[in-house]
Amino acid sequence: MNLNLQPYKGTRDIYPEDMRLRQYIFDTWRKVVESFGYEKYDVPILEPLELYAAKTGEEIVNEQTYVFNDRGDRRVTIRPEMTPSVARMVAARRQEIPLPARLYSIANFMRYERPQKGREREFWQLNVDIFGVADTRADIEVVSIADQILREFGAGPEMYTILLNDRRLTDYIMRDYLGLTEAQASAMIKLFDRRKKISEADFDAQVAEIAPENTSETLAKIQKITEVNNLDDVPTGAPINDLQKVLATLTKKGINAKYDPTLMRGFDYYTGIVFEVFDQNPDNNRSMFGGGRYDGLVGLFGVEDLPVVGFAPGETTMIEFLRAWNLLPKLSPTTTIVIAPIGEVDVTAVADQLRAAGINVAIDFTDRKLDKVIKSAVKSGAPYLMIIGEDEITSNQFKLKNLSEETEKTLSIDQIVDIVARS
Amino acid sequence: MNLNLQPYKGTRDIYPEDMRLRQYIFDTWRKVVESFGYEKYDVPILEPLELYAAKTGEEIVNEQTYVFNDRGDRRVTIRPEMTPSVARMVAARRQEIPLPARLYSIANFMRYERPQKGREREFWQLNVDIFGVADTRADIEVVSIADQILREFGAGPEMYTILLNDRRLTDYIMRDYLGLTEAQASAMIKLFDRRKKISEADFDAQVAEIAPENTSETLAKIQKITEVNNLDDVPTGAPINDLQKVLATLTKKGINAKYDPTLMRGFDYYTGIVFEVFDQNPDNNRSMFGGGRYDGLVGLFGVEDLPVVGFAPGETTMIEFLRAWNLLPKLSPTTTIVIAPIGEVDVTAVADQLRAAGINVAIDFTDRKLDKVIKSAVKSGAPYLMIIGEDEITSNQFKLKNLSEETEKTLSIDQIVDIVARS
Repeated sequence: MNLNLQPYKGTRDIYPEDMRLRQYIFDTWRKVVESFGYEKYDVPILEPLELYAAKTGEEIVNEQTYVFNDRGDRRVTIRPEMTPSVARMVAARRQEIPLPARLYSIANFMRYERPQKGREREFWQLNVDIFGVADTRADIEVVSIADQILREFGAGPEMYTILLNDRRLTDYIMRDYLGLTEAQASAMIKLFDRRKKISEADFDAQVAEIAPENTSETLAKIQKITEVNNLDDVPTGAPINDLQKVLATLTKKGINAKYDPTLMRGFDYYTGIVFEVFDQNPDNNRSMFGGGRYDGLVGLFGVEDLPVVGFAPGETTMIEFLRAWNLLPKLSPTTTIVIAPIGEVDVTAVADQLRAAGINVAIDFTDRKLDKVIKSAVKSGAPYLMIIGEDEITSNQFKLKNLSEETEKTLSIDQIVDIVARS
Repeated sequence: MNLNLQPYKGTRDIYPEDMRLRQYIFDTWRKVVESFGYEKYDVPILEPLELYAAKTGEEIVNEQTYVFNDRGDRRVTIRPEMTPSVARMVAARRQEIPLPARLYSIANFMRYERPQKGREREFWQLNVDIFGVADTRADIEVVSIADQILREFGAGPEMYTILLNDRRLTDYIMRDYLGLTEAQASAMIKLFDRRKKISEADFDAQVAEIAPENTSETLAKIQKITEVNNLDDVPTGAPINDLQKVLATLTKKGINAKYDPTLMRGFDYYTGIVFEVFDQNPDNNRSMFGGGRYDGLVGLFGVEDLPVVGFAPGETTMIEFLRAWNLLPKLSPTTTIVIAPIGEVDVTAVADQLRAAGINVAIDFTDRKLDKVIKSAVKSGAPYLMIIGEDEITSNQFKLKNLSEETEKTLSIDQIVDIVARS
């Protein structure tokens, strides 16, 4: 029986052409976050299940984790997200770690979801977190990084909006303004979270189910604060100072940011400002990624608490955004020259000379007919081809074919190094 | 109850200082393999268990895999090695993939082993494979890359030896030369594999157990071929052509390579030349990593077979080798300047100017006393510190402290950019 050619359901093999794209995304992320002083870390792919029990949210833990017992009967899970792990890292060195601690990772995660377009069971994310800053300068920095990443990819301000909300304001609206009980508030938050995905009539019907005793009053109040998404419409006394400060600063910096009272975010650990970056493409209008402040998490590890703000964009959504807006660059293979030896000629010394000058050189050792060798070189996407026989070795003069321009020059190794370095 | 500060047993959180070292190892690997024309790929962290059943070897599959049923009752395992996955990738595009296919990955794996120094349950490896070359030019290239990686890290030829053997020669020695049965050969191969780890008396005693009927003759024959590890001592008719050719070429290239009849390698899929890189450090004399030819694996996926040669060095062993030979460089954080704002002064515009010039800048937003801020900056390892008050913002002249030299200069932003770019 043959082995199966398919990888595990909901996952993909990443061939070099896709890997180049991934590498481009990762390199751009890395460049931006490092420019803001973030340092890279990593954590294990496998974690004790308890790590997620506290704050990750029931749906992910109970329905989406890859969880099992190891050979020593420990209950473990493949990480479904990064936040609890990085909180642990900082908690474990709470006294020694220099503050503010700016940390980032680019890592893979797994969730058992129904595979569908743009959602895979294994996915890669950037995670960016700043530990130790209690005031809004951290929130502003983190949103600015999210914005800068999109600009670095070439996105213009018309392509995306950054929506903000505050967990404290949501709590105020649910309890003080709408006067809901804990259970009602919890249902209403879930409903707010779905608001952009359901019809208005559907929304109103569900509000009636949650608040059957004073539906029309509740609906009127909700309409008042959500109609234009303006902080001025929020009732007097609501905790909006931080949100106002962040919005004002972001606007001054030219960042397209606005308040959205229906913005909720899935994770339970958020405690303050939360945000999401929305794609403005009419064909693809949706939340791309988000983040927020989660001040209570480090303290759960039994050490003195630390304020934290973070966010986490995903690779797949980023690629879809860039593709839809036509922002993906043409990416070449890392190999620059393919050498095709004719017959038995030994070209390794030539290749080694070029490599020593910093050029990436692949030798075609397949002994196929020349037309097949050329076809393979063209298909590989490498920009140059050198066909080398005994004559070239003897004369030390080589033909360099530019495969995209379909030109050829006869050159010394030094001249080849010059030309390739300049291209 | 508090959450646990420890990661899962046998794994580690990688803090930025360790991450820099990992990044240095990965970047060096990447540089060398790309110079030989290898292109990067990736595969899922989770694989169907069957993928490893064929050729990975019983010990790993039955005792060391992290294996479980997913929520859809599929039997899956966290990848314990890369080779079967990359063979699958190539097999799945057998007709389209340009040959020779040179592929590499840098990825993590898990094996359920007893945690000990230098052996972790989660580990990172480089995997380098060339598909589509049947002759020894592929074996020579792969060993040359292994050698070049060590040179790129600064290792000299006195620090390591490359040992070679050939599965076909091993088979010949076991069956034709020693006249062993299949079962005896299998036991003898395992014994050869342990030869460097046990005493001579122990070795001889175990040979007697395996071949009780003609022990003294068998021992004499083994001694003849293993005494000086010379291919000339191998009986006439043995398949040594490839090995001779590879050894001659490597020696000509100045690579310290020699034949070792006791070199076995653990995986079942090898079919030709195998090799291992040995650390020559007397305190740490051991196999660091290895590889070889495995021509039958692609065909197991039901497509036309392809010859392959590959190898896989690990991160931990590489670091131990470099540390023991004092080859590890001093690595700095990616952050170049820490800015400490005095009081309420807004330094983000200054930071953004420096970032736009390509400098990585972290702002200390902690509002701590200046001595604590300076202490954190020094501890972080960043080379420069700028303490900025209203005066600096007004005059547009800033004090740049060089933290290692303990000097300070008053400069414009442009001058700072110049100095930092040159440093």
